[in-house]
Amino acid sequence: MFLHTSRLQFEAKPDHPDAHYARKLQELIGGAYGEMTVTMQYLFQGWNCRMEGKYKDLIMDVATEEIGHVEMLATMVARLLENAPAEATDEAVKDPVVAAVLGGMDPQQAIVSGGGPTLSDSNGVPWNGRYIVASGNLMADFRANVAAEAQGRLQTARLYNMTDDSGVRDMLKFNLARDTAHQNMWLAAIEELQEDGLEGPISPSALFDEEHAEHAGTIWHNSDGALGAEGGWASGTAPDGAHEFSYVMNPEPLGGPASAPKPDPLLYATSPANLGLIEKAIRKLT
Amino acid sequence: MFLHTSRLQFEAKPDHPDAHYARKLQELIGGAYGEMTVTMQYLFQGWNCRMEGKYKDLIMDVATEEIGHVEMLATMVARLLENAPAEATDEAVKDPVVAAVLGGMDPQQAIVSGGGPTLSDSNGVPWNGRYIVASGNLMADFRANVAAEAQGRLQTARLYNMTDDSGVRDMLKFNLARDTAHQNMWLAAIEELQEDGLEGPISPSALFDEEHAEHAGTIWHNSDGALGAEGGWASGTAPDGAHEFSYVMNPEPLGGPASAPKPDPLLYATSPANLGLIEKAIRKLT
Amino acid sequence: MFLHTSRLQFEAKPDHPDAHYARKLQELIGGAYGEMTVTMQYLFQGWNCRMEGKYKDLIMDVATEEIGHVEMLATMVARLLENAPAEATDEAVKDPVVAAVLGGMDPQQAIVSGGGPTLSDSNGVPWNGRYIVASGNLMADFRANVAAEAQGRLQTARLYNMTDDSGVRDMLKFNLARDTAHQNMWLAAIEELQEDGLEGPISPSALFDEEHAEHAGTIWHNSDGALGAEGGWASGTAPDGAHEFSYVMNPEPLGGPASAPKPDPLLYATSPANLGLIEKAIRKLT
Amino acid sequence: MFLHTSRLQFEAKPDHPDAHYARKLQELIGGAYGEMTVTMQYLFQGWNCRMEGKYKDLIMDVATEEIGHVEMLATMVARLLENAPAEATDEAVKDPVVAAVLGGMDPQQAIVSGGGPTLSDSNGVPWNGRYIVASGNLMADFRANVAAEAQGRLQTARLYNMTDDSGVRDMLKFNLARDTAHQNMWLAAIEELQEDGLEGPISPSALFDEEHAEHAGTIWHNSDGALGAEGGWASGTAPDGAHEFSYVMNPEPLGGPASAPKPDPLLYATSPANLGLIEKAIRKLT
Amino acid sequence: MFLHTSRLQFEAKPDHPDAHYARKLQELIGGAYGEMTVTMQYLFQGWNCRMEGKYKDLIMDVATEEIGHVEMLATMVARLLENAPAEATDEAVKDPVVAAVLGGMDPQQAIVSGGGPTLSDSNGVPWNGRYIVASGNLMADFRANVAAEAQGRLQTARLYNMTDDSGVRDMLKFNLARDTAHQNMWLAAIEELQEDGLEGPISPSALFDEEHAEHAGTIWHNSDGALGAEGGWASGTAPDGAHEFSYVMNPEPLGGPASAPKPDPLLYATSPANLGLIEKAIRKLT
Amino acid sequence: MFLHTSRLQFEAKPDHPDAHYARKLQELIGGAYGEMTVTMQYLFQGWNCRMEGKYKDLIMDVATEEIGHVEMLATMVARLLENAPAEATDEAVKDPVVAAVLGGMDPQQAIVSGGGPTLSDSNGVPWNGRYIVASGNLMADFRANVAAEAQGRLQTARLYNMTDDSGVRDMLKFNLARDTAHQNMWLAAIEELQEDGLEGPISPSALFDEEHAEHAGTIWHNSDGALGAEGGWASGTAPDGAHEFSYVMNPEPLGGPASAPKPDPLLYATSPANLGLIEKAIRKLT
Repeated sequence: MFLHTSRLQFEAKPDHPDAHYARKLQELIGGAYGEMTVTMQYLFQGWNCRMEGKYKDLIMDVATEEIGHVEMLATMVARLLENAPAEATDEAVKDPVVAAVLGGMDPQQAIVSGGGPTLSDSNGVPWNGRYIVASGNLMADFRANVAAEAQGRLQTARLYNMTDDSGVRDMLKFNLARDTAHQNMWLAAIEELQEDGLEGPISPSALFDEEHAEHAGTIWHNSDGALGAEGGWASGTAPDGAHEFSYVMNPEPLGGPASAPKPDPLLYATSPANLGLIEKAIRKLT
Repeated sequence: MFLHTSRLQFEAKPDHPDAHYARKLQELIGGAYGEMTVTMQYLFQGWNCRMEGKYKDLIMDVATEEIGHVEMLATMVARLLENAPAEATDEAVKDPVVAAVLGGMDPQQAIVSGGGPTLSDSNGVPWNGRYIVASGNLMADFRANVAAEAQGRLQTARLYNMTDDSGVRDMLKFNLARDTAHQNMWLAAIEELQEDGLEGPISPSALFDEEHAEHAGTIWHNSDGALGAEGGWASGTAPDGAHEFSYVMNPEPLGGPASAPKPDPLLYATSPANLGLIEKAIRKLT
Repeated sequence: MFLHTSRLQFEAKPDHPDAHYARKLQELIGGAYGEMTVTMQYLFQGWNCRMEGKYKDLIMDVATEEIGHVEMLATMVARLLENAPAEATDEAVKDPVVAAVLGGMDPQQAIVSGGGPTLSDSNGVPWNGRYIVASGNLMADFRANVAAEAQGRLQTARLYNMTDDSGVRDMLKFNLARDTAHQNMWLAAIEELQEDGLEGPISPSALFDEEHAEHAGTIWHNSDGALGAEGGWASGTAPDGAHEFSYVMNPEPLGGPASAPKPDPLLYATSPANLGLIEKAIRKLT
Repeated sequence: MFLHTSRLQFEAKPDHPDAHYARKLQELIGGAYGEMTVTMQYLFQGWNCRMEGKYKDLIMDVATEEIGHVEMLATMVARLLENAPAEATDEAVKDPVVAAVLGGMDPQQAIVSGGGPTLSDSNGVPWNGRYIVASGNLMADFRANVAAEAQGRLQTARLYNMTDDSGVRDMLKFNLARDTAHQNMWLAAIEELQEDGLEGPISPSALFDEEHAEHAGTIWHNSDGALGAEGGWASGTAPDGAHEFSYVMNPEPLGGPASAPKPDPLLYATSPANLGLIEKAIRKLT
Repeated sequence: MFLHTSRLQFEAKPDHPDAHYARKLQELIGGAYGEMTVTMQYLFQGWNCRMEGKYKDLIMDVATEEIGHVEMLATMVARLLENAPAEATDEAVKDPVVAAVLGGMDPQQAIVSGGGPTLSDSNGVPWNGRYIVASGNLMADFRANVAAEAQGRLQTARLYNMTDDSGVRDMLKFNLARDTAHQNMWLAAIEELQEDGLEGPISPSALFDEEHAEHAGTIWHNSDGALGAEGGWASGTAPDGAHEFSYVMNPEPLGGPASAPKPDPLLYATSPANLGLIEKAIRKLT
Repeated sequence: MFLHTSRLQFEAKPDHPDAHYARKLQELIGGAYGEMTVTMQYLFQGWNCRMEGKYKDLIMDVATEEIGHVEMLATMVARLLENAPAEATDEAVKDPVVAAVLGGMDPQQAIVSGGGPTLSDSNGVPWNGRYIVASGNLMADFRANVAAEAQGRLQTARLYNMTDDSGVRDMLKFNLARDTAHQNMWLAAIEELQEDGLEGPISPSALFDEEHAEHAGTIWHNSDGALGAEGGWASGTAPDGAHEFSYVMNPEPLGGPASAPKPDPLLYATSPANLGLIEKAIRKLT
């Protein structure tokens, strides 16, 4: 069960409204790597966690924090939209600065939300539930969490450079710091999962003895760039300590021809079996 | 530019058709972590790579291989669908085994594709371009690549246990091995990016001196599970070697109240400014 | 900012696992009128509310409660999936009951979530941000809230009849009661908005003197069903007390012909202006 | 079956083309609360109505009218796009007014539709079938209909203020009036359903004796805003006349801890059962 | 403007309910090539037509007919769902036939629509506005129309074989016939556009003198299948009478290397310019 | 299996960056008729082809070429985005030209991709797998292929007019030529399918003797435009040579009333059976 306090986790006050920037910030609310994604990804990972204890408690700590990040951004967007032009376009576009703002605004922030945020990204595409993953395997999911925090901090950093509003920057400095903390945290949790003997570096830590071992360490040279073989992935022991890398310079297909089976006549695929039948069908008709 | 050989990278021949399993395999074609995702993720990362050389060449090697994985799975699905029931349902459901197959089939594999695969997941939801990421930042993207290969191998392992068809299992043993190789490969590339001095472990490796340093190492205890403080993320030096962890046991909000600004009257938000006006508007009307 | 306790708002323990039912319950998690929708709809309405006070505080009370409803349902789904068949299909389908369960399961609950819920509806379509509305106009939004709670309770009632598991029913009896309370609550809030003189019954309570008054009370008889004129909407004073209803028995179009303007030649619409040009273009080519 | 006359229900002629405004109007065509939504919502409600007579006939009257509203808006958009800049951008942007128009245009209206409307909203997101609801329960659906007309009129009013083109405004005055009429009409139908003894105010009007009665009238104070208890929803008789409201000032969770069951080993969730196994698996491999 | 009669264009009465088949029929309502697609595709083509006269009048004739096809299918689905199992699953699955029906049902037809159709395809994915095209170029659009009717008739034929209910088959015989008529009709209209000198066979009939003529007739042999050169497309005059075909047996790339430009430092792409900077950034921090 | 060369099929070098145009070009990458669609449509058609030989080999030739078209466009977009404004908005918008560029840019190309392409259309909507069709019936699919190439060339032609950058135009001249070649190619393949006796002009070439013959040649006059009867589709022999056209001037519905069956009480549809029950339910409660 959840409780809420009406105070924000961190202040979210712009110096000045900026309707164009309000659109860009939508990426951090409803983008594939925005705050909504980490919120829901962590909540579902916590609820789907099969091991009571420190990992689950950590996940729920962070998940609950992230709801408050959506709140900060939603509040910031509403404030950036204050006084945004909502009157007749004709008048407005005579001032080139206003015109540019109008051109770059998210029209739904005005028409649909009345000057507030939507649950969409910076192109107005709605956030959706396929952005999250909660597999029950903590190693696989923590890998996804580091990735999400890395993309999130990267996008925040780009947005940081796109404004010089000190209020917006103040909030983003907090967000950048939290994304640093969370990347480190998931990296630490990945190490700890291995130290605790719960997971190996490769997910899932199973079926290694069933998989075709001769293909578990090779890199296939399917593109003609010459330098792929110069990396550490082309030879030597792999990071899991259990496989040897090698580089297949002239890869050959191992399978037979790609072909689909004989079609079911009731599904009307084009087939040699049709030969002559068509003509007959049409002749009968006329 | 691309070239194609009609032979498969690895054989994809089931012992027996299995229409219900054909639906499940769709997850590996068009699911959020299926082969289509890694294909397009790696292609766009390669095309968006800002540094000629071993990293880009590796990305294009693997991207090109992955198109062939979609091909293997598409071929396998068509073969699993051979002889799937396409006649009147009434007859079929009298046999409970056939009935169960019918119930579990993806109807679009028959009605739309005529016994072949679709570009959708195991629930029939179409694959879409938001599943991929290609940010230009190789550290952030390689993190996403490890995550994708981990989820992909996990799903493949689950599907491996859901069949005992030796032909299907033979192909999945190859897929499992490739997912092992690729996880190791991206992990090695992540290490190499750091050894080469191109990226640090936290993405992006910038703005550390601008972000609010006091919030870059704390874990906030927002959920009442008692054990979150017992992990390695609660104290000590963080994996990046540059931050110290600490655990905030009784977190307090740092910002003021969440509030939205005074509304623009032309957007008709409910507001104290409306007091009395509404009644007047209706009275005038009647 | 939010806080979380690891105890559920209400108990969510099924008597027995039921994998098929676990799929159906997804509708209440990630369906268009599921708990995720009301959670996000109320959160965004609260953050977008332009009037501090009782309405905003109520919205945030209920929004915060609803996150806990998603939690209850997510937990219930994981428990219903315990021991769901995850082994080879061939074996399983020999038992018709198992076969039926397999046919009706959501494959992603196993393959993607490892026996847990997804953020999707009962057909596996992901929840998305366009399901919510937060317009800033409280009357319009409270209308949407009553509607959402009504559809939600209706779906819960249907699902209630689809199980006789006493644990599931116990939780649904709580959900039904909350949906009753919330419908009443939003209906009361709609009345209070009017009593407070903040909004009239019609949204927005503006522009009545600009709109074409002669069309503000008519029902057009565009379909030949004979009885539409027998309802209270066909004559008399409208619920807003400010308009008179009338029924247009033989409606005539008021506008001129629907036509699109002359096309821009650079956009290559088919047009009389093309006459002869095409032939010339092709002749020149050969 | 349907018939069509080529005359519009109401005139749709702008004084002047306005490409930027043409994009905004897309919200009323293909937005979640645009004319396409009410068209399809009412059609499916009519086709799914389980009671012949005045309600069904009314639904089909209005549904059929709404198709004509899509037609009016589609025609208006095409006319607003007349002479929109379709030539090389470089030339155009030297004039700031043209530049602003270009920036704010929907590129698909030119590239895809050749100067006509698309079936998308003002951000170019396609309309989809999850926007509609037709549950078979008329009370629940009429609640959704009032909500849709309220949001629709609100968006129309906002768009009305964003233009001073007298032709556009003339059409929107008609649309505003129809939205007024339709809100009143559905409100009247809601009253009549109750007077006719077919439905109560709460949907569905069933299972009240099964639901947990002690939770059917309470408002939980989960957020710390102090004024939620001051509304009419905090005490007294609820609008349905059958429940008493009360306000739970210090809510306590009623359920036990949220936890997921022991995982199936074939699904590879992280679990205490893995302890030591991983290390063994990797050791065996090397 | 539109009018409606409550009689169906053709009868839609199944002999017996069949809940599993009701799900499959959804493909013809809300699938990418279902009746909803042709309805909206033709309506938008008509409204976007830039030439008054026979073509536009034909488009509107057929568009209006198609709304009635959605109506027939929606009615048929509701009737097929009569008496579908809506009670507790446990009881039901003991009968294998009922179990199979339950497994194959669309759960939303019961939970969301109360025994009626949804606006989705046979996998429950909602219909969306990107399925339609209305470009303003009649030749391009009529090509799309033939294609849509061809896929539509193909899917109808497959569904025809999946039932032996004489009432369903009677309706589908009508649908098959209409799809035959409409394919012929669009093929005739394609011929007439050329006879009228309005369009050539290739769309758009423009820019032939600008395009790189040496690449306007070649087929590139990028896949190693040996027989592609044996078709009529490998040599001789092309169907437009204006180009000559040839087959490029050993295709060579004509462009330079695919490479992305030097990155903007504010966007943090990985780049040789980062060398050493990262280490410095981290060192400064510690 | 696929191989890749790092050289582009054709050169893709703009004279100058143009961030606004980079957004528009997204339509050719990830639009419904962009290069991604033809790539995946042809690949899945090839893999689903039920007849080895010239048709399948052709499909795979072209499919493989098309991957390279996505590559050319992705490279072009990255180059057009070089030096796009990524700094603070406030500064930038003072220059109206920069302002217009900013307004018209796709924000995700900067924030998400770091100056590269996304897998979305020109409105930022992600490409999805429902855009493709691969039915197994070559006639139906080749019709769809001509349609896709026609829309693709039309959109390319429109984009060609929107730039005067000679480098961009050079690439588009190649694309235009390929779209011409491919339209001719599919038209030739359609003819050859008929000459080979494999398919007739109407898809599928079956069930003509089952369908209701009297409705297989009629055009229904459901819209009041007077000229629909003047086309070649109104009389004479249809293009398939097997049906006669006729025009139904005063169409009458052939079916009975559209009605839904009596509802299941457990699904709570509104029904005459509810009469009185509701009141009783509420009375019992109070």
